[in-house]
Amino acid sequence: MSREETLQPIIDFIRELDKLKGVERKTRPLGLARFENSAEHSWQLAVLAIALSRYAEGPVKLERVVSMLLLHDIGEIDIGDTIAYATEGMEQRKIAEQAAVNRICAILPDELSDQFESLWQEFEAAETPEAKFAHAMDRSIPIILNLANNGQSWRENGIRYEQVIKRNGPAVQAGCPALWAYLQRQLEEAQANGWFGF
Amino acid sequence: MSREETLQPIIDFIRELDKLKGVERKTRPLGLARFENSAEHSWQLAVLAIALSRYAEGPVKLERVVSMLLLHDIGEIDIGDTIAYATEGMEQRKIAEQAAVNRICAILPDELSDQFESLWQEFEAAETPEAKFAHAMDRSIPIILNLANNGQSWRENGIRYEQVIKRNGPAVQAGCPALWAYLQRQLEEAQANGWFGF
Repeated sequence: MSREETLQPIIDFIRELDKLKGVERKTRPLGLARFENSAEHSWQLAVLAIALSRYAEGPVKLERVVSMLLLHDIGEIDIGDTIAYATEGMEQRKIAEQAAVNRICAILPDELSDQFESLWQEFEAAETPEAKFAHAMDRSIPIILNLANNGQSWRENGIRYEQVIKRNGPAVQAGCPALWAYLQRQLEEAQANGWFGF
Repeated sequence: MSREETLQPIIDFIRELDKLKGVERKTRPLGLARFENSAEHSWQLAVLAIALSRYAEGPVKLERVVSMLLLHDIGEIDIGDTIAYATEGMEQRKIAEQAAVNRICAILPDELSDQFESLWQEFEAAETPEAKFAHAMDRSIPIILNLANNGQSWRENGIRYEQVIKRNGPAVQAGCPALWAYLQRQLEEAQANGWFGF
């Protein structure tokens, strides 16, 4: 294949990923009535990671963190988004998400397909410093938006203060301890404000 | 300031940037009736850059390319998006955009503010290999979507084939020549299909 011909599968992949713009999440952009989608969410996570990289627990390769965050939700093209507090059917969901990632990455030339799948696996495993930092970003962004939104997605989905602490604390603490220290204090204020579900 | 206290301006910046989710562009996501916004557009550019990095004209530091692409549109928070084919008032627009970037970056601690402003300036100047590659991505993504969308934004805005070639060719060629070779051939087909405005 000529260099030019090998571009077609990459373009096909980009067009497939365009569908992420149509995957709806539970958080609303600040000041907008609609829900945010997983594409703009991924953008915001990557910007947050760049801005907070000096606060990561241990040095991280930012290029890998950002690549992971930009790609971590692509499986949602087939299975949709689920709120982080869901507990039922998570094992089935993970199997379906992995299958979706396989399907989508298979569009790419082998080398790139392997590279993107392994970034996705690294994020899922949450073991490397990069993946831990990426998870800290992913877990804290809905909190950051909710704290500026009177707890919009917590109230709309009946999420309690204790759930937010328990579900997100360990991951944010592990990847970005300064951020968790900051958020904890803000979450206490939010509780005093009555911004959680009951 | 404690490490924790220095986080507040970063969080304020992220919340300010959330407004990019509400900046409407002229291209519609594939299969959706609405217009895309500049946040999801920035995500898509960054993914395209990661996927095409080996086709850049000369070696590029991907971390800087991606950071530039994620931030290059933040001035649109104050001034909105303008189609790449606009010709009137571009000088005024650039002045206003620079002022917006100053305003928004001033939210950040000095070091980060300088870093982000200089990334934005580097993109604008389009002189480094990283900035040239980033521009090639920015100029080609609407073409990539239009080619899968029967020329949606070209037809809706009366954009002719010659305008697309003239406005985008040099920048895409300079940053990613293999991509321009690919797109040129596709654009000829699109012209034969009648996908441009008149």
